[in-house]
Amino acid sequence: MKRALGVCYYPEHWPEEMWAQDAARMVETGISWVRIGEFAWSRIEPAPGVFEFGWLDRAIATLADAGLKIILGTPTCTPPRWMLERFPDMLAVDPQGNPRKFGSRRHYCFSHDGYRAASGEIAARLGDRYGRDARIHAWQIDNEYGCHDTILSFSDAAREAFRTWLAARYQDIDALNRAWGTVFWSMEYRHFGDIDLPNLTVTQPAPAHELAFRRFSSDQVMRYHEVQVAALRARSDAPLIHNYMGRVLDFDHFDVGRSIDIASWDSYPIGFLSDRLEASEEHKARYLHQGDPDMQAFHHDLYRAVGREGRWWVMEQQPGPVNWAPHNPAPLPGMVRLWSWEAFAHGAEVVSYFRWRQAPFAQEQMHAGLLRPDDVAAPGLTEAAQVGREIAEMPEVSRGTAPIALIFDYPSEWTWATLPQGAGFSYFRLMLDAYRALRRRGLSIDIVPSSVSDLAGYKLVLAPGLAKMPTALTTALTQTVALVGPRSNLVTDELSIPVPMGPDLPGLDVTVARVESLPPSARRAARGGGSVHHWVETLEGGAPTLFETVDGAPVVMGNDKLNYLGAWPDAALWDRIIVHLAEAAGVTTCALPDGLRLRDTETHRFAFNYGPEDTDIDGRKIAAADVAWWPL
Amino acid sequence: MKRALGVCYYPEHWPEEMWAQDAARMVETGISWVRIGEFAWSRIEPAPGVFEFGWLDRAIATLADAGLKIILGTPTCTPPRWMLERFPDMLAVDPQGNPRKFGSRRHYCFSHDGYRAASGEIAARLGDRYGRDARIHAWQIDNEYGCHDTILSFSDAAREAFRTWLAARYQDIDALNRAWGTVFWSMEYRHFGDIDLPNLTVTQPAPAHELAFRRFSSDQVMRYHEVQVAALRARSDAPLIHNYMGRVLDFDHFDVGRSIDIASWDSYPIGFLSDRLEASEEHKARYLHQGDPDMQAFHHDLYRAVGREGRWWVMEQQPGPVNWAPHNPAPLPGMVRLWSWEAFAHGAEVVSYFRWRQAPFAQEQMHAGLLRPDDVAAPGLTEAAQVGREIAEMPEVSRGTAPIALIFDYPSEWTWATLPQGAGFSYFRLMLDAYRALRRRGLSIDIVPSSVSDLAGYKLVLAPGLAKMPTALTTALTQTVALVGPRSNLVTDELSIPVPMGPDLPGLDVTVARVESLPPSARRAARGGGSVHHWVETLEGGAPTLFETVDGAPVVMGNDKLNYLGAWPDAALWDRIIVHLAEAAGVTTCALPDGLRLRDTETHRFAFNYGPEDTDIDGRKIAAADVAWWPL
Amino acid sequence: MKRALGVCYYPEHWPEEMWAQDAARMVETGISWVRIGEFAWSRIEPAPGVFEFGWLDRAIATLADAGLKIILGTPTCTPPRWMLERFPDMLAVDPQGNPRKFGSRRHYCFSHDGYRAASGEIAARLGDRYGRDARIHAWQIDNEYGCHDTILSFSDAAREAFRTWLAARYQDIDALNRAWGTVFWSMEYRHFGDIDLPNLTVTQPAPAHELAFRRFSSDQVMRYHEVQVAALRARSDAPLIHNYMGRVLDFDHFDVGRSIDIASWDSYPIGFLSDRLEASEEHKARYLHQGDPDMQAFHHDLYRAVGREGRWWVMEQQPGPVNWAPHNPAPLPGMVRLWSWEAFAHGAEVVSYFRWRQAPFAQEQMHAGLLRPDDVAAPGLTEAAQVGREIAEMPEVSRGTAPIALIFDYPSEWTWATLPQGAGFSYFRLMLDAYRALRRRGLSIDIVPSSVSDLAGYKLVLAPGLAKMPTALTTALTQTVALVGPRSNLVTDELSIPVPMGPDLPGLDVTVARVESLPPSARRAARGGGSVHHWVETLEGGAPTLFETVDGAPVVMGNDKLNYLGAWPDAALWDRIIVHLAEAAGVTTCALPDGLRLRDTETHRFAFNYGPEDTDIDGRKIAAADVAWWPL
Ligand SMILES: [Zn+2]
Ligand SMILES: [Zn+2]
Ligand SMILES: [Zn+2]
Repeated sequence: MKRALGVCYYPEHWPEEMWAQDAARMVETGISWVRIGEFAWSRIEPAPGVFEFGWLDRAIATLADAGLKIILGTPTCTPPRWMLERFPDMLAVDPQGNPRKFGSRRHYCFSHDGYRAASGEIAARLGDRYGRDARIHAWQIDNEYGCHDTILSFSDAAREAFRTWLAARYQDIDALNRAWGTVFWSMEYRHFGDIDLPNLTVTQPAPAHELAFRRFSSDQVMRYHEVQVAALRARSDAPLIHNYMGRVLDFDHFDVGRSIDIASWDSYPIGFLSDRLEASEEHKARYLHQGDPDMQAFHHDLYRAVGREGRWWVMEQQPGPVNWAPHNPAPLPGMVRLWSWEAFAHGAEVVSYFRWRQAPFAQEQMHAGLLRPDDVAAPGLTEAAQVGREIAEMPEVSRGTAPIALIFDYPSEWTWATLPQGAGFSYFRLMLDAYRALRRRGLSIDIVPSSVSDLAGYKLVLAPGLAKMPTALTTALTQTVALVGPRSNLVTDELSIPVPMGPDLPGLDVTVARVESLPPSARRAARGGGSVHHWVETLEGGAPTLFETVDGAPVVMGNDKLNYLGAWPDAALWDRIIVHLAEAAGVTTCALPDGLRLRDTETHRFAFNYGPEDTDIDGRKIAAADVAWWPL
Repeated sequence: MKRALGVCYYPEHWPEEMWAQDAARMVETGISWVRIGEFAWSRIEPAPGVFEFGWLDRAIATLADAGLKIILGTPTCTPPRWMLERFPDMLAVDPQGNPRKFGSRRHYCFSHDGYRAASGEIAARLGDRYGRDARIHAWQIDNEYGCHDTILSFSDAAREAFRTWLAARYQDIDALNRAWGTVFWSMEYRHFGDIDLPNLTVTQPAPAHELAFRRFSSDQVMRYHEVQVAALRARSDAPLIHNYMGRVLDFDHFDVGRSIDIASWDSYPIGFLSDRLEASEEHKARYLHQGDPDMQAFHHDLYRAVGREGRWWVMEQQPGPVNWAPHNPAPLPGMVRLWSWEAFAHGAEVVSYFRWRQAPFAQEQMHAGLLRPDDVAAPGLTEAAQVGREIAEMPEVSRGTAPIALIFDYPSEWTWATLPQGAGFSYFRLMLDAYRALRRRGLSIDIVPSSVSDLAGYKLVLAPGLAKMPTALTTALTQTVALVGPRSNLVTDELSIPVPMGPDLPGLDVTVARVESLPPSARRAARGGGSVHHWVETLEGGAPTLFETVDGAPVVMGNDKLNYLGAWPDAALWDRIIVHLAEAAGVTTCALPDGLRLRDTETHRFAFNYGPEDTDIDGRKIAAADVAWWPL
Repeated sequence: MKRALGVCYYPEHWPEEMWAQDAARMVETGISWVRIGEFAWSRIEPAPGVFEFGWLDRAIATLADAGLKIILGTPTCTPPRWMLERFPDMLAVDPQGNPRKFGSRRHYCFSHDGYRAASGEIAARLGDRYGRDARIHAWQIDNEYGCHDTILSFSDAAREAFRTWLAARYQDIDALNRAWGTVFWSMEYRHFGDIDLPNLTVTQPAPAHELAFRRFSSDQVMRYHEVQVAALRARSDAPLIHNYMGRVLDFDHFDVGRSIDIASWDSYPIGFLSDRLEASEEHKARYLHQGDPDMQAFHHDLYRAVGREGRWWVMEQQPGPVNWAPHNPAPLPGMVRLWSWEAFAHGAEVVSYFRWRQAPFAQEQMHAGLLRPDDVAAPGLTEAAQVGREIAEMPEVSRGTAPIALIFDYPSEWTWATLPQGAGFSYFRLMLDAYRALRRRGLSIDIVPSSVSDLAGYKLVLAPGLAKMPTALTTALTQTVALVGPRSNLVTDELSIPVPMGPDLPGLDVTVARVESLPPSARRAARGGGSVHHWVETLEGGAPTLFETVDGAPVVMGNDKLNYLGAWPDAALWDRIIVHLAEAAGVTTCALPDGLRLRDTETHRFAFNYGPEDTDIDGRKIAAADVAWWPL
């Protein structure tokens, strides 16, 4: 399959007269896919049961006639105002107990039975009309589950559903009490109906209570989602897609991914740098107009893992300044092309820009499109067109092969969020630090779910921060060189401390005797360079010490094959650890210039210069914000 | 009219035996006006319908007998506890949905019909009794509308009134849907009764929705206010006044100003420096005991514009440390006199100190008065007496003439608040930066509303940040040298992007192709010195470039007559732009020493040294915290 | 009485088979006391009226058989879930109006009549069963009153009780109006039933209203507490204890202390450094693994004053990293021993570690115990055992004698909290600064309540920040050298300014004419070294000036016998003032090395090195985190 470009388009936002010319210009730009419909419920069903498909029929016809393939979205993230008349209690409720009111989007509670059914109905109606329509090449279900912190809802509907979910999980209340340790503060329950949602408690609720609520909330997404999957599967053979949002981790994307065909995500590098990345002021200043050098690649690799058979897209690609971050600078010239090519280098089938033309009204009026509101080409359009020409001359989609695997696990994120033990700590933050360290050494990486049972294809596997290691994973780690930790396999599934204490790895005599969390500026130097910070474990056991602090406290213990890392390294120490293990694993690394990143496909090596100055690699000069590739 | 001093006095706070002696001492200090009554409702009407005017009669008699002119306030900002029994739903509601409870002041919702009527009734009762009383020389209506964030209320009363207001504005719901762009996220409404207040939405509500609510809220102030205006107009010929609070911008002061006779404001320079000014730590440390050198003058010039025929007062002047800012240092010796003279230099008729004697009880017990609680003179009293002697020897009130106009517009503040695009950005902040730049060059300024249609009297006019330029203003700008922008005329009245895109100025080929917002530390150097920060526009068009970045991006484009500024300059660049335009306009500027400010009346030039060290101007030495004047 | 060690133990958390072995190991460690039961209500009364004492009988038997003395806790800080069925309205309500839900602990409202009675009933049931049981050597009532901000509740029950309390205090509503100064903003009340709780007001409520609510809230703790006291006194002769939490000041510990026999507190030095101490980053980094050098000693001295006849314990001693602070580092080796000995040096009878074995489940699973979850000794156990051996060879409990007294007063804390006048200011913060200054000079200190009437035993007495000085205290100060101020005796009991204005000390002609609060970085240099910051008073009067600013403003005025301090000194100035007054008082001081602290008992001088490096005193070398003692 050839790499392709797409674009997000909202025919309902524009006079019908403009559609044909827009479609022609898309094609001219090298775009072959167009996503429509996902916010249009109030136009499709302006009143309950009153459907108006005419405009949508005509929009589909106009776009398809121009040669575009259509992705049709179910509009369920934007229930119309009249839905509230049917279901006044369908609103999500925030942690303070306030209903999240109508007036923007994503205001529904995943646990509301009525709204779930209504979502299935609208999907069915769309499926009925377009499910066998060859012009519809794919379906998008809903839009950005979880965006705007919408997974956890503290509504009455959620409370009732949570009790039911708990009853199913634990069967009897004594099992729940044991699992949660409710004896601790006389929190014991006598009936499932006594259990409330874990918000507004005097101090922290029982961690297992909160973790159960997070698991439940993720399951509610699946329960909601599957109604639409079923409606569309019954009516269409086109692939189903969901577009995940960057660093939205409150539900298990692997679960959703298994139920559909293609994963996609919405990539806003500069917005994410501003609003959802822990980094120094210097780092944020350096990458202000480019985005973080690893944030996109991490998600690319993640969604290659989430997508069935590795199929994944970028459904929304930032094409210029956005409107929603604390500050919204423009990309350096070249970055739209760089981001696009980076996605392809990581195996994307399609990169689709958000959006075709900047809307002159409503919430995102200051979010750039490929066109300005006055129809003049914005800088992103020129870069998109260049990418369009370039992909035509390049090989087909390649998912590449990576020598390195990084285990990623959503419940670990929830576990850390429930018991961070240090302000500002999170699983994702640790994962990204590990990922950065691998990438600074030029390595290509696969992200792999914790359910993996075969790691034979990898030379080196990292599993930092993994709450509970499944047995199959523990076994699979023996196939390769592995670095487990910090804070890996230290808790049970119910977020308590197991005895024997973790990491309890077969063949590795290491026990985490104690953990410490440290304030941001605290550091302990490692012998030989670098230091540990944030999180430090006291390691005991007979395994050899590979790295240690200047005081002689072990930091990494292992046998080079199976190794445990008992701290959160800074960049310098991460580099030393990666180099050491890569050598042990027979993987070649190179120290890349600051801001340069590499990615190998089956046929080519790609180099991306995120830095604001020219750099070079292997004698090749690469300008700021430029991308280069050469055959492997 | 001779300049005069006043004071705020609360006879109800003191034993009746003290009144006569207080009055005599006021007169002795050089005070001729005294404001009373604005917090005394519970003493005037201690129970519903039970009026006790005796004490007020006696207080008025005592003060007037001493020779003082009385401003009588309507006590509507402090409805008594029993009012809640009449109207349990009269409380304003905060954005989180909590009623703002009784126990301080300003707890009423402007939209409550019952309370609005009750406010008219108490005004009428006061008018009945004192409206033709020659001792009452002016009326103050309510007190500091909007203080403590009290304009926006999310009550049921507000919701109902908002729907009515929307129906009147848009006539039919389709017009509203079009204006707000509700199609964007299926937010379309079928009935005005479906529309909720724009709080507690999942993410940002439609900007036009929020802007409409802000306009509505300002109109509700007017609606409330006019009931009292009508009650008093029918019963008195004395001038009506309102005392606005510094940097309270949630309602349109020009609207209120048109309905009454004299504008006044409450000036707390040191409190404002601490609690409502964006400035560096260094700036705040330097002016800790003086207040910002431009904040007061800005408001003076603003209220000269708000007052009918330029009539304005300072109704409350800080006389020593206040109690309500995060930190409350004392003024440098001399500052109370400096602030007073600065107000007179900007055209004030009256400067009235808040308050006569420090109250030993209740919320403001740590707020200084001219007297200490034990009746000893506080430092402010001595300075007030000096001002009293000085004004006696000076000419009458002079509003001065200014060569420079700065356009100020409340809806622009609301527009920026609705869509700041950058954290910490506001219209007021930009305006104050522009105003500072003009003042650092020694210029006297008029603030002018955006409804102005004649600017012929001015040599240079600035219109930064103006959301939507009225046609009459655009025309009037041709009469003078003008600097429009940044972010001026880029949106429609309904907060959407017009096509053709702005600034769309006749005779000036400039289009804002793109905007960027930048984090606080980001800067782009300008060729020749200074830099731009915060907000940067990409300017296109055929107009000549007057200023540009070192990369060649235009910063100011224009023909020296009509010019557009496409960025937020830092102080150094502002200075260069002002000097350049002043030369083009034939206005003489001078670079003032740090902290020195000038203001010309018709007869005199005044110089104010806000700096903590001595300085000099034109060979005249001016001590720290001192003021000097000389004939023009 | 011999010094002794204790431990907190939760038999209900562990299989019954482990109890005997745990008990034996406690004894082996040198532990003689064990606290049980305080969180076990759901096991004692698993359903309403269904009591299960069997397990508790067996636990008591097992522990006592091993030779341990038992402290039995009433479990009232953890009402079981079924209590909510009896009293759905028993929950405390937060300042935002949200009920504080079940799911952790301390969710009860002190004002709820039903829950108060239920607390008395469970205490009575425990008293019935164990009150005359010789194995129960002491009772703990409830646990950490006020922890998690649980004193102030804004519930309906609190509102009703507050009205009753006010009616009892003021008798008639006019008295309340006068006391509160409600005339200020027409806040006057006609009936006690009109008065609401002081939350959610538009701006600050009347200070006397808030202070009354704080006094009421403290009284409600007593009212609640005394029901349990009565229940146990009627059934047992064993001493009653409460365990106060560090820096929880929302109720009057002296009141509680008078009603029971022994004071105890819960000492978490490293947690407190992280979560409840104002200090520079440098200070927090230096003491990251030790805790603040004065925070523990301050509380030790405070609870020696709170305990009847000076009897006090540490009921919970941090034994390793905790889980609840923003960051949770481990103690330096030696600190557990140092903390224990410091408590004994200040007169503790018992130091009891929290907890025996780290719980592997629930909220505090990451809180260290003396044992790890897997039963391996944690580092704290070894240090505890060393202390156990050391106390055996030392003299009995000694409360010591101190030449210095520091007056401490809970209503002063509430007064500052009600009217801080400067962001971040608090009475406790000022007190700790004064205490630190005394300790840096090697002094041993007694903390004394403001109700004291005899100070003849002291050479020097400090009373900083004391809201209102009782007459008896004023008189007692003449017995000694005294330093009063800053901000002492400046307000009445009803938080208004008295006339004559304070400090109004007999024989000292000083008046505070004005006060200023300053932002954190502002400083005014004192002549001779050091400076004042935060809070500066303008002092007037004929008393001699002992210290002044470089501008000649008095900082300390007095006659060396009775002195008033009119500012918040920095450390350098505090040192100078203390040295000066100590000389005047004939007290010898010495400048201690950084981090070293001394405490004298009747027989020994103890030295504690909180610093991270070795130090020495009088030729004795003391290692980091070490303690030394020698006979006096
Ligand atoms: Zn999106
Ligand atoms: Zn005021
Ligand atoms: Zn505790």
